[in-house]
Amino acid sequence: MHSSTIKAKTGKTEEHERLVAEMEAELGTSITSQEDLDILGTSPQDIVANLKAGKEGWSCERVMTVYIRSACAAHRKTNCLTEVMFHKGLEEARAKDAARAAGEEPKGAFWGLPSSFKDTYNIVGVDTSLGCTPHCFQPTTDPDKEGTLVKLCRAQGGIPFCKTNIPQTLLAFESSNPIFGAASNPYSSARTCGGSSGGEAALVTLRGTPLGWGSDIGGSLRIPAAYSGCVALKPALGRWPGAGQRPVVKGFEGIKPVVGPMARNVDDLTFASKAMIDAVMENIENHDYVQVENVVPLPWREAMLPKRMRIGYWLEDGVVRASPAAQRAVREVVAALEKEGHELVLWQPPNVAEVLKIFVALLSFDGFKQLLSNIGSDPMEPAMFLVTLGPRLPAFARWLVNNLVHYFARDPLFASVFSASKRKTIEEYVHWVDQRDQYIKTFRRAAWQEEKFDFLICPPQAVPALEHGRTKDLSPLCLATVMFNIVDSTAGVLPVTRVDAERDAAPANFLEGSTGSWILEKKVYGGTDPAYDAAKMAGLPVGVQVVGRQFEDERVLALMKIIEGAVAYDA
Amino acid sequence: MHSSTIKAKTGKTEEHERLVAEMEAELGTSITSQEDLDILGTSPQDIVANLKAGKEGWSCERVMTVYIRSACAAHRKTNCLTEVMFHKGLEEARAKDAARAAGEEPKGAFWGLPSSFKDTYNIVGVDTSLGCTPHCFQPTTDPDKEGTLVKLCRAQGGIPFCKTNIPQTLLAFESSNPIFGAASNPYSSARTCGGSSGGEAALVTLRGTPLGWGSDIGGSLRIPAAYSGCVALKPALGRWPGAGQRPVVKGFEGIKPVVGPMARNVDDLTFASKAMIDAVMENIENHDYVQVENVVPLPWREAMLPKRMRIGYWLEDGVVRASPAAQRAVREVVAALEKEGHELVLWQPPNVAEVLKIFVALLSFDGFKQLLSNIGSDPMEPAMFLVTLGPRLPAFARWLVNNLVHYFARDPLFASVFSASKRKTIEEYVHWVDQRDQYIKTFRRAAWQEEKFDFLICPPQAVPALEHGRTKDLSPLCLATVMFNIVDSTAGVLPVTRVDAERDAAPANFLEGSTGSWILEKKVYGGTDPAYDAAKMAGLPVGVQVVGRQFEDERVLALMKIIEGAVAYDA
Repeated sequence: MHSSTIKAKTGKTEEHERLVAEMEAELGTSITSQEDLDILGTSPQDIVANLKAGKEGWSCERVMTVYIRSACAAHRKTNCLTEVMFHKGLEEARAKDAARAAGEEPKGAFWGLPSSFKDTYNIVGVDTSLGCTPHCFQPTTDPDKEGTLVKLCRAQGGIPFCKTNIPQTLLAFESSNPIFGAASNPYSSARTCGGSSGGEAALVTLRGTPLGWGSDIGGSLRIPAAYSGCVALKPALGRWPGAGQRPVVKGFEGIKPVVGPMARNVDDLTFASKAMIDAVMENIENHDYVQVENVVPLPWREAMLPKRMRIGYWLEDGVVRASPAAQRAVREVVAALEKEGHELVLWQPPNVAEVLKIFVALLSFDGFKQLLSNIGSDPMEPAMFLVTLGPRLPAFARWLVNNLVHYFARDPLFASVFSASKRKTIEEYVHWVDQRDQYIKTFRRAAWQEEKFDFLICPPQAVPALEHGRTKDLSPLCLATVMFNIVDSTAGVLPVTRVDAERDAAPANFLEGSTGSWILEKKVYGGTDPAYDAAKMAGLPVGVQVVGRQFEDERVLALMKIIEGAVAYDA
Repeated sequence: MHSSTIKAKTGKTEEHERLVAEMEAELGTSITSQEDLDILGTSPQDIVANLKAGKEGWSCERVMTVYIRSACAAHRKTNCLTEVMFHKGLEEARAKDAARAAGEEPKGAFWGLPSSFKDTYNIVGVDTSLGCTPHCFQPTTDPDKEGTLVKLCRAQGGIPFCKTNIPQTLLAFESSNPIFGAASNPYSSARTCGGSSGGEAALVTLRGTPLGWGSDIGGSLRIPAAYSGCVALKPALGRWPGAGQRPVVKGFEGIKPVVGPMARNVDDLTFASKAMIDAVMENIENHDYVQVENVVPLPWREAMLPKRMRIGYWLEDGVVRASPAAQRAVREVVAALEKEGHELVLWQPPNVAEVLKIFVALLSFDGFKQLLSNIGSDPMEPAMFLVTLGPRLPAFARWLVNNLVHYFARDPLFASVFSASKRKTIEEYVHWVDQRDQYIKTFRRAAWQEEKFDFLICPPQAVPALEHGRTKDLSPLCLATVMFNIVDSTAGVLPVTRVDAERDAAPANFLEGSTGSWILEKKVYGGTDPAYDAAKMAGLPVGVQVVGRQFEDERVLALMKIIEGAVAYDA
C-alpha cells in the first residue's frame, strides 16, 4: 500500500474511531430502555409529529441522542459510517429545542429528524472522500456546495448527522474501499451489504437512522436494499435534484445517476419521497437553488391504482439464471397479487444481454481513465477487477481473451459484453448512445405500449447478499437493476422473504436449459464453493423489484405498499 | 452538380410543381372573395369551433380548399413548400365532412384544421428528404414512424397538408438546399425567411397555414419567426415529444433539438401549445406512443404572472453588436412594460462568447462527418461554409488560420470559437459536455437565483432578415438564440416593429467601444456592402426574444401576449 494511502487511511479511521468513541463515552452505548426503543420504533413522520407537538419526553436532543447511540451500534456491527457528525448533530438538535423554547414555530417536514446520507453527498465540515486518498482531508466549506437533498433536508428542519460507506469509485456493489474498509451485511458479517449505497442500507436496516439518502446509476439504491433488507426507491431521471455530490466522472451523460430515499418500510419511504418532492416544488416556486439543475417541476400526485392491474413479471433474464430464493420471492408476490384479483403475466423483456453490453460500452467510454483517476495511488479494490479489466488489457491480449472465451469456453454472451469494455472513439461512443436510445424505445414499446402493463415485477438480482469479495468476477449480476437505469423507469425494491436452506437449495440440474452466460452461471452455482448457497445464505432477506413507467414514483410506492401488506415480511 | 443530384432535384421539383399546378387548376388561384378572406382571417381555434358547430358555409373541405389556394400562393411567392399533400388533404377533409354528415361526433382540438409541418417530420406517403439526394424518393410507409406531433395532430382531428422548406442538413439559418432551392422572405424575395424552420415561417406569415410545426436546436424556430414576422415558441427539452423526424445526427446528445409551434399571433400559439400538451397528457394516460419517448408528464398550467414582474434585458451580447433596429425593438418593449408597472433591469448574461464556443465544440464532435453524410454527393450550400470549415482544414492550416486570425486580425474571440470546431477525442468531448453543464449552472444561478428575474428579453439576432447567401460567413450570429438551447430555457419570439430606414440607420461610429468580434462586426456593419443596411431593410419585421425558466411554456406565452398587446405590431 502506498504511503499516501496508509496516511489517509490512518488519519480517517482514527478520526472516525475517536468521534464514535467520544459519543459512546458521552451518551453511553445502551439502547435497551423502553423509551429508547420507542423512539427507534417510531416512524420518521411520527417522530416529526411528536417533536412538533412537543409531546412529553420528546425533544430533538433526545431523538438525536438515541439515534447517535443506535448509529454507533450499527457502525460497530457493520462498519457502515464514513463521516461522523454527531457533535454537530447534537448541537443542532439542542439549538432547535432552544429556539422552540424561545417561541419559534417548528417548521418543515423533517423538523428535528436525524438524517443520514451516502458519502457522495457534500456536507459542510466533512469530506466527500468516496474512500479515495486524493479526496481525503478536503472538507466542504461552502454551504452552497452541499448536496441539494442535504440543503432541502435542512430547509425542512432535518439534521444531517452522519455519512455512510461506499465502494471505491462507486462502480461496484460491494461497499469497500482502502480508506474505510468494507461495510458488512446487517445479517452476516461475512457478507456485503451491497453497494454503492451500501453503508446507508446497513444503517437504515439496523435502525441507525430514521431515513437514508443514496443514489443509483446501475442499482446502487436497489442492490443494497435487496441485500440488506430495507426498502429503496430509484426515481426516473430529472425529478429529483442531484447536485452537490462528488462526481466520479465529469461530462459523461451516457448513463446518469439519480438520487433517492431508503427506509425501513414503504410508508416511511413514501413519506420521505413526498416530503422531498414537496420541498423541491416549493424551492422552484421560490426561484431558489433547485432550478439551477434540470429538475422537472412535477408536483406530487396521489396514486390512483386501477382496481384490476395488469402486471408483467419475469423469473430470469436470460443472462444469469435467478436463484431459487430470488425466483420464489417473485412467485410469492405474484401469487399474493393474483389472490387480490390482479392479472399477472409471465413476460420476457426484449434482449436483456444487450442492456448489459450497452451499459458496459458506455461506462467504459474513456477506458475508465477518469473514474480511476479518483483513486490516485490507492490499491484497486477486488470488486473493481472485472469492471475495469477490458480497457486495461492491450489490444492483442484482449483479442486473445475474447476468442478464448468465445470458442473455448462457449460463452459468446460474456465475450460480447467483455469486448464492449474499452476506450471509444467519438464515433463509437455516439453509436452506443444511439443503441441505448433504440433499446429504450424497444423496451418501452413492448412493456408499456403493446402489453399495456401497469407495472413489472422481477428479481433485483439473481442472488441474495454475496460474501465479501465475491463480486470480483460477478459484477455483471447488476444487470437486473441496470436495465431500469438504461430504460429510465421508476423502480423500487422491498424485501419479501428470507432464504430458506431447504426450499431454496439449487438442485443439481438447476442450470439445465439455461441460455445464459456459462461463465457467470458456473461461478454462481457451480464448483465446490458456489456463490449461491441456500444453506449458507439461510435467513438473508430476499427482495423483489417493482418497476413503473418514467416519473411514476407515486404509483410504484403505492404498489410496493400493497405488496408489503400482502407478503408479511418479518423485518 | 453530380448527376444523382440533378436527377433528384429534377424529379422532386417536377413532382412538386405538378402537384401545385394541379391544385391551382382544380381549385383556382383566387383568394380574393370575402368568404375566402374570412376563413383565412379566422383563428385556428375559431376554425375548429366553426367546423364543430357546423356553422353555415363552413366545412372541412371548404377550409382545406381555401388553405390550399393560399399555400399555393405563398409557395409561388417564397418557394416555401417541399412535400405537397393537397390531394390527400382534400380527401381527408371530405371524409371528415362525410363522417360528420353520417352522424359522427367531431372530436379533437384540431378537428378539420389544415396543418403544416417542417420537412423534418415524417408523414406517411411522402419523403423526409431534408433537401438531400440520398433521402429522396423514400417515402414513409409505416404510420408508426410518423412524427409524434403529426400523430397527435391527426388524433386531435387535424389534417396534415404540406411540408416546408429547410436548409441542407438543417445546420444553417438560410432555408436553402440543392433539391428544393432557397425559400424567400415574405417581405423580400432578395432575403431569406431564416431557418431551419424557414419555409414554415414564410407559410405561416403569408397565411398559407393556420398553424405550423417546426423544431429548434440553435434558433431554428425563433430565427425564422424573427426574420419572417410570425411568432414561435421553443420549449425546454423534455415536455414536447419529438420522435418521428429524420435525425441528421444519431446518438449525439450534447445539444438536443426540440419541437415547437409557429403561428401568426400569440393567441394562436397558445392555443396550439395547450392543445398539443393536452394531447400529450391524454396519450400518456392511455399508455400510448408518447411514453416511448422521454416526455415529462407535465400538464398545462394556466400562467399566473406576478402583478409587478422583474425582467432582465440586454441590448447586445458582447459578441456581435445588435443593430439599431434590433436594439430599438427591445427598447420599445422595455418602455412598454415599464409603463405597465414592471421592473426592467439592464443586465449582462455571463460570458456569452463561451456559449458559442461550447455549441460549436459539441456540434463538431465528429468533424461533422455524420452530418455531412446526409448530403451524399450533393454540392454543399454556401450557408454551410463557415460552420463546417474548421474540421475540413488539415491541422497545420488550422493552426495557421487560428494564429493569423489571432495575431493579425486582432480577433481572439473569433479565433477561439473557430478553433473549437474540430473532431474530438472522447476525452475532449466529455470536457465540453462538462463545460456546457457548468455554463448552464452559472447562467441559471445568475439570472434566476441571484437576480430573481421572472423573464429575460433580448434580441433574437443582431440583425433582421439577411439577403440570400449572407449567412455564409455570419453563422455565429445564431448565438443569441443558441444561448437558450444551451441553458435549456423556454424562449419565444414575436415581431414588435419594422425596420425604419432613418431611425435604424447605423451611424458611422456605431462600433465604437465594442468588445465583440472584429471580423463578424466588420462583415455586418463595415465596408461598402454591409449585411445590415436599414435603408435596404426598411419594412422588414423586427422581433424580440422572450425567455423564461425551464418548462415555462405557459408563462412565456403569457408575457408574449402582454407584449403583443403593448406594442401594436402591424402584421
